[in-house]
Amino acid sequence: MSIAFLGPRGTFSEDAAILHGGENSSRTPFASIPALTEAVETGLCTEAVLPIENSIEGAIAVTLDLLIHQTPLKISAEVMVPVRHFLVTAPGAELSQITTVMSHPQGLGQCRKFLEQCLPNAAQIASLSTAGAVEEVATSTDLTKAAIGPGRAAALYGGQVLASDIQDVHTNVTRFVVLAAEDRPPTGRDKTSLCFTVKKNIPGILAAVLEPFARAGIQLTKLESRPTKLWLFEYVFLLDFLGHHQDEPVARAIAELTDLCEMVKVFGSYPAFPVETLGFLGDFSRSANRPADA
Amino acid sequence: MSIAFLGPRGTFSEDAAILHGGENSSRTPFASIPALTEAVETGLCTEAVLPIENSIEGAIAVTLDLLIHQTPLKISAEVMVPVRHFLVTAPGAELSQITTVMSHPQGLGQCRKFLEQCLPNAAQIASLSTAGAVEEVATSTDLTKAAIGPGRAAALYGGQVLASDIQDVHTNVTRFVVLAAEDRPPTGRDKTSLCFTVKKNIPGILAAVLEPFARAGIQLTKLESRPTKLWLFEYVFLLDFLGHHQDEPVARAIAELTDLCEMVKVFGSYPAFPVETLGFLGDFSRSANRPADA
Repeated sequence: MSIAFLGPRGTFSEDAAILHGGENSSRTPFASIPALTEAVETGLCTEAVLPIENSIEGAIAVTLDLLIHQTPLKISAEVMVPVRHFLVTAPGAELSQITTVMSHPQGLGQCRKFLEQCLPNAAQIASLSTAGAVEEVATSTDLTKAAIGPGRAAALYGGQVLASDIQDVHTNVTRFVVLAAEDRPPTGRDKTSLCFTVKKNIPGILAAVLEPFARAGIQLTKLESRPTKLWLFEYVFLLDFLGHHQDEPVARAIAELTDLCEMVKVFGSYPAFPVETLGFLGDFSRSANRPADA
Repeated sequence: MSIAFLGPRGTFSEDAAILHGGENSSRTPFASIPALTEAVETGLCTEAVLPIENSIEGAIAVTLDLLIHQTPLKISAEVMVPVRHFLVTAPGAELSQITTVMSHPQGLGQCRKFLEQCLPNAAQIASLSTAGAVEEVATSTDLTKAAIGPGRAAALYGGQVLASDIQDVHTNVTRFVVLAAEDRPPTGRDKTSLCFTVKKNIPGILAAVLEPFARAGIQLTKLESRPTKLWLFEYVFLLDFLGHHQDEPVARAIAELTDLCEMVKVFGSYPAFPVETLGFLGDFSRSANRPADA
């Protein structure tokens, strides 16, 4: 009953696994996104959390391609995790001592304003992961180094949090999908994800495939495209919308869509994440010195 | 009158610049994609070629975001370049001598079958760019090293081409856009690119914005989405279609689209690239020992 996530421990992916399975869930880190579906397909784990889109960076292509081309697993839940960055040091360090800041290049880039204003003279060093940078700094005795990374990593590795929520953009959220053998029965507040390729040489077909959803008043929450990889500049479209594929109007719209398509793959129906809870995920800055929870 | 491209010399981006401006065009390499639009906006160059999508990897997000959020430049042309990989060594090396193969991780990944079959025991070393790996190998005296990279880089740096078209997938093509101060007048076989955000809380609005194009028989060639970055999980849609924005039916469809949108930005109209010419870009394998052309 373990949840596969993209490691190392302390990442935002582990935050997603905890948000889904609870603090006491069993969780197993893996080194790549394709390893996560492999882990569930082979029975190593029962569920996997995969990042699928970020509100600033956009789609995570490797996850979309796994869903389109490879895995038979279903989306059984979605989880949204705010990307909150923290300035972490070894215990006892002070801001004036810091001469070097380490993080994944994306972490450094997402905190550019804070670094310009508060640490303008610190050298910036790239590392392979934000959680890895926090581990390195938190477990060292060097008080001149700081890392930018997730609060859970600071707590896990015993780091000292000098500053909280130092990211430039506060609406930076990553959406994860939970993959499992089956999707979920209807709850009344569901979402469905699917992909399709349209039949060729039919003018206006993209408007036509969306029309049944419009007619049924089904709210689309996302439309995305990926290359088919079979031929040049032909696309697979990925569609998210509110409703469950067992709901009668949704089932009818999917049937009408299917008539106009060469291929339709329903990734699953699952409860929509309560977006209103974002921003209430706990105060990592105060929990940094708690014992590790994983 | 110089064309800005993503360097170093010998990259597929330089191929795109040559295909657009000719062998004798003046070309200037830059180190990043945002530097390319900056170069034209500030007058350092008159045009820039930017990769916008690859037929396997999909959209190049940084280019889409520059077009959506930053640059006032217009798309004045598109160019498609097949991603053809070559096995390059220093002059005189033989296959049996090779113990190491260098390339950008994407180059190594795109030639996995060739490497497994023909160089199963060679160590694979990652480098920062395919063209850079070719330069390093071609200009060395070490006959045990080979690089995977573009044919033009082999020609440019005097490398020996041992094997040609070693990529696994032969329908691997990168599409580039040429940005300039103005787009182009109608030629009769044009494409138009634009982006839009729809008005909020109107059910079925995405089907509605596409309907005027369907009604006018305008063929969509691409629909893509990017995060607005302003708020969570709201999207900017990018649309490509056949026709020029000065054509009467296209102008009318854009006007109807605009009525349903919060924002519309027309990136420009430009001649559609003749896709039928792909695969006839010259034989790099025979030109590897020609003098550098740039």
